[in-house]
Amino acid sequence: MAMMSREAYLASLEDGRRVFAEGEEVKDLRSHPQFVQAIELVAEGYAKHYKPGEDACGPYFAVPHGKDQLKEILQELLDWDMVTVTTSQGLLALLTAAARIRPASAVYADRIEGYFELCKAQDLRCVQAITDAKGDRRLSPSGQDDPDAYVRIVERRPDGIVVRGAKLHISSASVSHELVVMPTKKMKPGEEDYAVACAIPVNAPGVKIVNTSFAPRERHQDFPVSSRHNMPEGFVILDDVFVPNERVFLAGEVEHSATFAHSLGLWERLGATAHLAEYGDTLVGLAQLIAEANGTERVSHIREKIAEMVIYATLVRAGLEAAIANAEASPEGWYFPSELFTNAAKHHGAAEFSTMVRNLHDIGGGSIVTAPSIADLEHAEVGPFIRKYMATKEGISGEYRTRLFHAIRDFTADAYGGWQLVTMLQSGGGLYAQRLVARKHYPMDEAKRLALKLAGLAEV
Amino acid sequence: MAMMSREAYLASLEDGRRVFAEGEEVKDLRSHPQFVQAIELVAEGYAKHYKPGEDACGPYFAVPHGKDQLKEILQELLDWDMVTVTTSQGLLALLTAAARIRPASAVYADRIEGYFELCKAQDLRCVQAITDAKGDRRLSPSGQDDPDAYVRIVERRPDGIVVRGAKLHISSASVSHELVVMPTKKMKPGEEDYAVACAIPVNAPGVKIVNTSFAPRERHQDFPVSSRHNMPEGFVILDDVFVPNERVFLAGEVEHSATFAHSLGLWERLGATAHLAEYGDTLVGLAQLIAEANGTERVSHIREKIAEMVIYATLVRAGLEAAIANAEASPEGWYFPSELFTNAAKHHGAAEFSTMVRNLHDIGGGSIVTAPSIADLEHAEVGPFIRKYMATKEGISGEYRTRLFHAIRDFTADAYGGWQLVTMLQSGGGLYAQRLVARKHYPMDEAKRLALKLAGLAEV
Amino acid sequence: MAMMSREAYLASLEDGRRVFAEGEEVKDLRSHPQFVQAIELVAEGYAKHYKPGEDACGPYFAVPHGKDQLKEILQELLDWDMVTVTTSQGLLALLTAAARIRPASAVYADRIEGYFELCKAQDLRCVQAITDAKGDRRLSPSGQDDPDAYVRIVERRPDGIVVRGAKLHISSASVSHELVVMPTKKMKPGEEDYAVACAIPVNAPGVKIVNTSFAPRERHQDFPVSSRHNMPEGFVILDDVFVPNERVFLAGEVEHSATFAHSLGLWERLGATAHLAEYGDTLVGLAQLIAEANGTERVSHIREKIAEMVIYATLVRAGLEAAIANAEASPEGWYFPSELFTNAAKHHGAAEFSTMVRNLHDIGGGSIVTAPSIADLEHAEVGPFIRKYMATKEGISGEYRTRLFHAIRDFTADAYGGWQLVTMLQSGGGLYAQRLVARKHYPMDEAKRLALKLAGLAEV
Amino acid sequence: MAMMSREAYLASLEDGRRVFAEGEEVKDLRSHPQFVQAIELVAEGYAKHYKPGEDACGPYFAVPHGKDQLKEILQELLDWDMVTVTTSQGLLALLTAAARIRPASAVYADRIEGYFELCKAQDLRCVQAITDAKGDRRLSPSGQDDPDAYVRIVERRPDGIVVRGAKLHISSASVSHELVVMPTKKMKPGEEDYAVACAIPVNAPGVKIVNTSFAPRERHQDFPVSSRHNMPEGFVILDDVFVPNERVFLAGEVEHSATFAHSLGLWERLGATAHLAEYGDTLVGLAQLIAEANGTERVSHIREKIAEMVIYATLVRAGLEAAIANAEASPEGWYFPSELFTNAAKHHGAAEFSTMVRNLHDIGGGSIVTAPSIADLEHAEVGPFIRKYMATKEGISGEYRTRLFHAIRDFTADAYGGWQLVTMLQSGGGLYAQRLVARKHYPMDEAKRLALKLAGLAEV
Repeated sequence: MAMMSREAYLASLEDGRRVFAEGEEVKDLRSHPQFVQAIELVAEGYAKHYKPGEDACGPYFAVPHGKDQLKEILQELLDWDMVTVTTSQGLLALLTAAARIRPASAVYADRIEGYFELCKAQDLRCVQAITDAKGDRRLSPSGQDDPDAYVRIVERRPDGIVVRGAKLHISSASVSHELVVMPTKKMKPGEEDYAVACAIPVNAPGVKIVNTSFAPRERHQDFPVSSRHNMPEGFVILDDVFVPNERVFLAGEVEHSATFAHSLGLWERLGATAHLAEYGDTLVGLAQLIAEANGTERVSHIREKIAEMVIYATLVRAGLEAAIANAEASPEGWYFPSELFTNAAKHHGAAEFSTMVRNLHDIGGGSIVTAPSIADLEHAEVGPFIRKYMATKEGISGEYRTRLFHAIRDFTADAYGGWQLVTMLQSGGGLYAQRLVARKHYPMDEAKRLALKLAGLAEV
Repeated sequence: MAMMSREAYLASLEDGRRVFAEGEEVKDLRSHPQFVQAIELVAEGYAKHYKPGEDACGPYFAVPHGKDQLKEILQELLDWDMVTVTTSQGLLALLTAAARIRPASAVYADRIEGYFELCKAQDLRCVQAITDAKGDRRLSPSGQDDPDAYVRIVERRPDGIVVRGAKLHISSASVSHELVVMPTKKMKPGEEDYAVACAIPVNAPGVKIVNTSFAPRERHQDFPVSSRHNMPEGFVILDDVFVPNERVFLAGEVEHSATFAHSLGLWERLGATAHLAEYGDTLVGLAQLIAEANGTERVSHIREKIAEMVIYATLVRAGLEAAIANAEASPEGWYFPSELFTNAAKHHGAAEFSTMVRNLHDIGGGSIVTAPSIADLEHAEVGPFIRKYMATKEGISGEYRTRLFHAIRDFTADAYGGWQLVTMLQSGGGLYAQRLVARKHYPMDEAKRLALKLAGLAEV
Repeated sequence: MAMMSREAYLASLEDGRRVFAEGEEVKDLRSHPQFVQAIELVAEGYAKHYKPGEDACGPYFAVPHGKDQLKEILQELLDWDMVTVTTSQGLLALLTAAARIRPASAVYADRIEGYFELCKAQDLRCVQAITDAKGDRRLSPSGQDDPDAYVRIVERRPDGIVVRGAKLHISSASVSHELVVMPTKKMKPGEEDYAVACAIPVNAPGVKIVNTSFAPRERHQDFPVSSRHNMPEGFVILDDVFVPNERVFLAGEVEHSATFAHSLGLWERLGATAHLAEYGDTLVGLAQLIAEANGTERVSHIREKIAEMVIYATLVRAGLEAAIANAEASPEGWYFPSELFTNAAKHHGAAEFSTMVRNLHDIGGGSIVTAPSIADLEHAEVGPFIRKYMATKEGISGEYRTRLFHAIRDFTADAYGGWQLVTMLQSGGGLYAQRLVARKHYPMDEAKRLALKLAGLAEV
Repeated sequence: MAMMSREAYLASLEDGRRVFAEGEEVKDLRSHPQFVQAIELVAEGYAKHYKPGEDACGPYFAVPHGKDQLKEILQELLDWDMVTVTTSQGLLALLTAAARIRPASAVYADRIEGYFELCKAQDLRCVQAITDAKGDRRLSPSGQDDPDAYVRIVERRPDGIVVRGAKLHISSASVSHELVVMPTKKMKPGEEDYAVACAIPVNAPGVKIVNTSFAPRERHQDFPVSSRHNMPEGFVILDDVFVPNERVFLAGEVEHSATFAHSLGLWERLGATAHLAEYGDTLVGLAQLIAEANGTERVSHIREKIAEMVIYATLVRAGLEAAIANAEASPEGWYFPSELFTNAAKHHGAAEFSTMVRNLHDIGGGSIVTAPSIADLEHAEVGPFIRKYMATKEGISGEYRTRLFHAIRDFTADAYGGWQLVTMLQSGGGLYAQRLVARKHYPMDEAKRLALKLAGLAEV
């Protein structure tokens, strides 16, 4: 057992993995514009956390044994790169599932704990691979034209299973080590081959990852946010991949198939809510800064819009705090956040996110998308004019204000902004899924009791 | 020191107080339809809490010395009658103000503590009297045509002050003992006579209270909620009322004038948020019950609307929990809830309340306002038809469903429902006030720091 | 053929109709507090429109033969009492249905035209009776525990049919002459007895009407709106009522069962939209008046809220204008408003109505529900104080402002206001129904074509 | 007088104009990636409209003399390139201003008509240059640190004026011929030099345009919308530009300074509303297509969201129709759309646009931002897998669905999508401006009259 250094991580990527992008196989991942900065972020994460010694291990392998620890992890998570986040979330989701399928499927639960220890010992980075291709959404896995529309077991061997299918929206897959594969939804009797959860190394034979990315290809100065914070999105093809038994966590028990998705959903939404709370604050900060730069921070309707954003960010944070304050312990002593508060907060954060972005756009003005590029700002002839006309007053230089506009555009009104609008909604399932889960975990009987009491009616 | 019994309370109302309603002075409060049930509620509160002995005192005089105590008070408060709630809120607001004006105005702070002990020793019920008549809102108190538009000191004597003016929206004034008078807003230099806070017995010479009420005058069966839960609203006239020094808590120090209103605002909004959370749950319960009674509880759009209501109620509750979790202690060791979370939660609860009521109305259907009266249900000829046609299925009788509709109408679509729509918004100030306070207490510098970091800009 | 005078109308009510309210049969309708003002409104309508002579007929019998006529009717309708409105709507709905079921069911269509002429010749007032008791909403009419949950034919005779069941939410039934009965929804094969449309005189044997009303029973001065504008809601019991053939418009043809409901839905929603547009303007007017009375009409957040209300009212009106501008003619040359625009406008008007009411409440302040009664305003001792403290400035007397608050409360925050919140949503079906119809009539193919063109894709 | 051909237009760009982008002066506009497609679009517009002969002129020079003509222009406008749209809007705005400043400033009005004839005779393309740099928004033009923060006259000569300053957000400036310069807002006495309106050729000495663009630089297949529809945004520097008298339309008359902005605002908002209506339909179409491709078009919550979008698009269109139906004629017989309906519709369209985009994102799913690129779709090894897993059923191929996702991303969740989010809000002024104008043109007196009548109050 030992932690991986920055160098060890970089070397670990040269493991034969098959990565594709923009119509070609990527042979040198570390120099490709779609991956270079993502790898750098993960490498920085390794460097920041590295401690020598056999006992050392990253904080992202912590399992919360109390509400305070849970809160601490959520706080730290905001400073981690995305792969470190998914490593923590994915493994906690697996452990949550383990707690929930015990004792019926204790063998799988034990394998999960073993796998957790393996990742921890080797300081691996994991991503969750959950969303299937799905084919026609009206039909269940077994009813599709193409039986591979959902990942399935195509062969069962004494020493393991062979899986086939595709997993979509797998952020960071190409720059991590492990794919934690789970069924995307509840399977029914007769769909045993689709009830499959397992862990697959990124470089396993048969794994092919096609990538897309919002990483800017050029003019990085005009993309102050996304040129630094970007991760490739992987379309993961499982072309008959063999998985040895010790890495198989479910292989036919349809009654547990939804447990993994629900467990992951909980942790993903919790993480997403933590990010939404921070993004909420960031949107407020951007709105206030640009209002101050424009000289409108005291204008009544601007103040009202910022107050609306303040209340949004605060409510999402309140939901997060309540999710932790109402966490519950598993028999193992592991703490899981409240499903109800997590889902309610995630729903509010996601549903209102686009309106908060709208408020920022309304406050900032058209220069969000029309501010001249930083290169023009430095041009000998027109640069001085841009500085002159983008400046507004003592203390607000043209350059500062221009850079602020670029940050707002990059964060909310360009490729990265668009990616955020979609992923904020979709992470952990769309709005519908969050409503469903919130409703399921709501104490409806208590609400009905209150209503009957108010109505002066005995319970029916 | 001793607690008041039910009988003692009833007797205490015969103290010469001057109460008016519907164009007449009310001589026998206890038999008047506008007051009979309100008095009964307060009396029940006394009966429920009564403990004999010199050391006994009501839990509504507790001052929270920790977050758990604060949470406990909020939980208990939901079961108290409204005057007991305002007693607790009003006195906690006074103590909060005391903590905030110390040491500059220690004399007042000490008087407040003395007054608190008096109320506790005699088990009195208090209401806050804060909103002034206000005249033309564009003008400050000293600029009004009528100098009495805000309550003011018209005479200063060695032993006390004489005040004149009116205080509006004073719920329950006529059935309580004490008016805790505070300035409605910040006064400026030159408005010393308007910077006045004090405590006035309801029966003090010069006090006249004109009442309105949503209490149903007849057909109580059709008003299952408001026939039981109603309180008169008092328009309190202070016709040159003398207040002895020991009951004067501010008399000219304009710099402290806003402190009282802010302190009261905090506790009022906290209490309102606690009620909104419970009302949110109640609305959910009513929606689910009526959907089940109609047979629509599995219809997709009905489920979605109920899920929306679930998320609303849960978010308000999350805000309440976060307000308590982030409570802060005064030097005296008294715990005050977080201004930020309290105001954000109150704002959300109030701003979306009418939409939640709309959802309930959309789910329930037209019978909310057209269901035949209970008396018709009992009519020999048409009663059986009403029972037949209002029934929907096994287990849902016509009577049960009819009563449920009356409860929904009474709670949300009749006199009491209208009173709630308005007071939910206005309690603790309108939406604007809550935005203002939320924004004021928001950690804006931290948000700006986050935004600057994201933008890759050094702080300005 | 002749128009009915005020006196003739009053006399016509003494026709043996069976009316119930508050647990008793009402023998003298014209002196009963639930009916007296409703009858007066209808009588005023007769008086206003009355013209002598055999050729005279009310404008509410006009059938629009062009867009301008359609617009004119909608304009006039705003000044009619509710029974006159439903007479026009109900008959136009019948004619619309006639146009739609021709030529397949020409006999029925002809009977409808004959019935229309009858009502016109006798100057009768009609109400639509459409909503059935419905029982368990999950089940269709034929699947209910009680076969009478939907109005049905229980006997077919050579000279007519006998119907049984109940119709709910029948506004004004007790003060009108005719019940236009229609099926509430699409019936399927096997439900022929439920596919029934016909016209029944209010005094037909077997008709019993149980009434509820938001009419204030006392203190009419405090209810300036509802003491004048109120109509009883009828729960209409059809206890085996015989209908002669010439009044039967559908008796088993399930394929036409939905046509009546859709036709009525169109005219009801159009009328509701016309009212919503006027109510929208009225809410704006009240908001502006109370802001001016309070002295806040120039406060920025107040102005913004009023502007929001202005935009709401204007959009609803725009929808109404577009519904007329896009009206379509039947083969008979009758003009029907656009289903798409009518439903979109009605949906927006209904869905946002409660938020507009909230804005008014936020702008007006707590006195909406706490303003002293008009009787108190006239009290010798406290009246002058109320006038003093409710006044705000030159030109805004205490009485004027108090009366304005009462009007706002009565219109939006008391029994009538609650009735409006519910009926605005439910008239013409709830929000769901309006979404459904809007979607159905939307040119989806054109929208898909636009999208495919944008995407650079050939049509699939 | 003659129309310009495609070739003539391309040649006309070689006129010495000074254009900058990405830190360099652009010498060959026609081959630069930021301009090539924009120029192509304008050239196509010329080609499409070209008619030979001296009397020929483009339909974009039509001045509506009736409501039908107005409607026709709005319909045609949707098929024009953006410069053709701004040519029509800019000139109609000038004519509107001319009508409004007559007779006081008849000289200017005549010059405007002359300029209109010039543009028409030479078939020129114009853009409006209105937004100033503005400096500190709290301060008026004359109070700024930098007197050039608003464009101003720095010299008055017998034959013309010299202007200095910058105009921002000038879409398409670099590919058009004429800058129609107007004051951005009302000027006050003492600010005569800022009250300046005039027309400046793009190649006039002293004009320098710095450009930005959301045009994709590569992978055009993945940007099916923006690779075709893009226009550069110009930051226009007026470095002491001389304007001869016949091109000066205002030079010091502060009382008319707002007239130009208001006139332009009207036409810009009308055009924006026309586009919003079409975009609304396009969003509906995309939502329906992707739902069908996913197999979710019958899922209840998906249908509800699409219905919401249908209602949105329909309401915006209703506003447009009402704006035309309520158009008013100037003394010249020119028809201007209704300010009230135009602003209400634009506000609704802009305010809710982001929520409609959110609905599309919620319906479409994560593949909107993670679908593999078209190049990958064509890769020999992974292409077949992508086609296999992106396909969903008979008739929905993997390629079709992938391309649809790219179109949605490009239109709503990438650089072009972000540009739209901002410009939809900001075109014609932000939401605040639209509220202000809607309120200003609303018949408030009529609304107050309605409210007073309802309240039973005589007018104050």
